[in-house]
Amino acid sequence: MSRIAQTPEPPYYAVIAPAELATDIEGYAETAAKLLAIAPTQPGFLGIETCLEHGFSMAVSYWQSLDAIDGWRRRAEHLAAKGMARTKWFRGYVTRIAKVERVY
Amino acid sequence: MSRIAQTPEPPYYAVIAPAELATDIEGYAETAAKLLAIAPTQPGFLGIETCLEHGFSMAVSYWQSLDAIDGWRRRAEHLAAKGMARTKWFRGYVTRIAKVERVY
Repeated sequence: MSRIAQTPEPPYYAVIAPAELATDIEGYAETAAKLLAIAPTQPGFLGIETCLEHGFSMAVSYWQSLDAIDGWRRRAEHLAAKGMARTKWFRGYVTRIAKVERVY
Repeated sequence: MSRIAQTPEPPYYAVIAPAELATDIEGYAETAAKLLAIAPTQPGFLGIETCLEHGFSMAVSYWQSLDAIDGWRRRAEHLAAKGMARTKWFRGYVTRIAKVERVY
């Protein structure tokens, strides 16, 4: 299976989430796997690409609308994943919301 | 130094480039390093985040405008990097151009 998301024609939205990981990331893989498993069940989900290096991770997920992104963010927070990440797993992170306009 | 790009307030543009790598990627690291080195000298460059896993890479670069992205694409092509990538290093890739609207 391709790790490149099979997305529809633009426009759609992207959530670009790079993160610098802490040294102790116990539990991170399990929570990340859980989030990856439930994302496709979320309304408006179009696809996700993830990459993990030593000390650094990137995830870009794709969504039909800003409302779909808000719904996903709320659900992810309910899982406590973000709270854990902020305090334990991540040394730094940022979330960028972008509108995909063109695809080559 | 942080691997998370220190970008200005939005709006600005992102080039999201996931790629599935071939088994033989000889020369890939050198060309990738060269592209990473010259990107900051390109007009309109704001930052870049990259991640490399076995068999998969992701790069998200940030730019002031679509014109800046066009300039970068032309320069990268002049380096023959894309041509090499298409035929040798990449099993599959896609390039998404997106307008960053919000950052958390």
